Amino acid sequence: MRKILVGVMGPGDKASQKAIDMAFTLGNMIAKESWVVLSGGRNAGVMEAVNKGAKSENGLTLGILPISDNSHTSEYVDMTILTGMGSARNNIEILSADALIVVAESMGSGTASEACLAIKSNKPIILLAPDQTAQAFFEGLNKDLTHTVSTPEEAIAKAKDLLHNNQ
Amino acid sequence: MRKILVGVMGPGDKASQKAIDMAFTLGNMIAKESWVVLSGGRNAGVMEAVNKGAKSENGLTLGILPISDNSHTSEYVDMTILTGMGSARNNIEILSADALIVVAESMGSGTASEACLAIKSNKPIILLAPDQTAQAFFEGLNKDLTHTVSTPEEAIAKAKDLLHNNQ
Amino acid sequence: MRKILVGVMGPGDKASQKAIDMAFTLGNMIAKESWVVLSGGRNAGVMEAVNKGAKSENGLTLGILPISDNSHTSEYVDMTILTGMGSARNNIEILSADALIVVAESMGSGTASEACLAIKSNKPIILLAPDQTAQAFFEGLNKDLTHTVSTPEEAIAKAKDLLHNNQ
Amino acid sequence: MRKILVGVMGPGDKASQKAIDMAFTLGNMIAKESWVVLSGGRNAGVMEAVNKGAKSENGLTLGILPISDNSHTSEYVDMTILTGMGSARNNIEILSADALIVVAESMGSGTASEACLAIKSNKPIILLAPDQTAQAFFEGLNKDLTHTVSTPEEAIAKAKDLLHNNQ
Repeated sequence: MRKILVGVMGPGDKASQKAIDMAFTLGNMIAKESWVVLSGGRNAGVMEAVNKGAKSENGLTLGILPISDNSHTSEYVDMTILTGMGSARNNIEILSADALIVVAESMGSGTASEACLAIKSNKPIILLAPDQTAQAFFEGLNKDLTHTVSTPEEAIAKAKDLLHNNQ
Repeated sequence: MRKILVGVMGPGDKASQKAIDMAFTLGNMIAKESWVVLSGGRNAGVMEAVNKGAKSENGLTLGILPISDNSHTSEYVDMTILTGMGSARNNIEILSADALIVVAESMGSGTASEACLAIKSNKPIILLAPDQTAQAFFEGLNKDLTHTVSTPEEAIAKAKDLLHNNQ
Repeated sequence: MRKILVGVMGPGDKASQKAIDMAFTLGNMIAKESWVVLSGGRNAGVMEAVNKGAKSENGLTLGILPISDNSHTSEYVDMTILTGMGSARNNIEILSADALIVVAESMGSGTASEACLAIKSNKPIILLAPDQTAQAFFEGLNKDLTHTVSTPEEAIAKAKDLLHNNQ
Repeated sequence: MRKILVGVMGPGDKASQKAIDMAFTLGNMIAKESWVVLSGGRNAGVMEAVNKGAKSENGLTLGILPISDNSHTSEYVDMTILTGMGSARNNIEILSADALIVVAESMGSGTASEACLAIKSNKPIILLAPDQTAQAFFEGLNKDLTHTVSTPEEAIAKAKDLLHNNQ
């Protein structure tokens, strides 16, 4: 049976410590659910942390990279998809994820583009710890698809809801 | 000598009349500068209007389509690039444009993703008529790259500035 | 540690029974090596058979799909990357594979494009059971990168060689 | 009215003088028909020559580049689409061309991938000056879609036929 891929998007090099800690917890909890972590796969910020968290629970991790080699891949990624297509790969992450958690704490433009592309594809996003402006912005794009949560635990609970309703 | 491509991004089917009117004027003014209009190329909203505006001044128009045929192409587009890659084509629009005008009036998620991808690629965006939330959101992503204007005339003046500084 | 992805490319709907049988054996042997099967992921021809073969040995299977949903995904694929970019996804398969086996028996144009893209990316291909014309054609493109074999067993042995030399 | 884009694919850095001469003539003749030259856009081999030929007749030229800047763009290209997606851009060239001429003299793997992708998309290819192996290979993939010619003049005549039948 096809495994469930949970996409976790978030800042790379400019991730705050809070974003990194939340990502580690997310990875941990995703692995406990026997879901696969899907991420941008780089060895930085939220990408590194969510994969590290998943591997600490023996989870499976899948990374979709913007470049065409593994020179910047997190050591906690089990399998890498090398797209060689830069930020155009963001849309592949969105389409492939069965549920999407966006770490909005210290969010950058790459992560923001992914949240927008998800809404464009009519997929719900779970916005974790956005500031007021980001929350208002995404709710303005589509209130029904934007689910705001404050903690990794709430994010996982919401992902369960959405996956359940999707079946 | 290579022609200057000015990307105009904006809402399609849900564009407001104000957005459509501004897009027509933009197309008109871009043609008068002997620049090429670069857009998403569909026969809807800002895409249709900006190309129509350009053709009314005998400008040249180039569309980058998400699908692989011309069944939804604006009749005002001279040349179409058929990507067949859905919203992943948004990044190609961003990379190809020498200057980028984002019609933020009645902005949707596709347009928002393009503005984010531009900032991710370190390219300035000219935000035309955003609401307060959108302006704050994009300035939060990168204040230096976000240029907010109120009218098509101001957008063209800002594009000239940016193109001049870029040479 | 990152898992090894072995790409198996080959015909879909028009695959001969011989191609299907070879693909099943390949999937089986790849799983026994603890490698991951990487394929186009559809429920047809070589794609279906190689994944079925791998699952019969409890292997792990990863599919990179041309469309944006799982409506045509093989039931033997564990994880799917949904690209939504048609045949442009062929290049992602090439870049992502640590070794590439091309089932050239009853080869079609999609598979042929992947073999060409591999050579373009300077990656070796293991051509399984090509006819004389195909062998001559790919050797003409690049003799050093084209390794011709007759059986799945020889293909796996060659993959081992190439993976070993690559480390 | 939408302009007709004629794709000319062929070798870059390793193009023979004969391939370059044929490409120049093709560009020239395409411009005389008031068609637009569509190519890979780089400043090498067939790409450089076909655009130079078109500009010598004041034709319009459009290039679809694999990288994300114009550092390797031919000076004879009027407008560049910067994809930043490497060889995945080959499929965009195929989809966008109203007719496709493949300079098969001294053909390399990139050009060969484009011919295969065209057949995969069910588009006819005009193979100019292939060797016997290449002709047999592409006819083996699809005899109906493979049109072999010996000279640029024959290639243009065949393109006219195909464009006419397509309307």
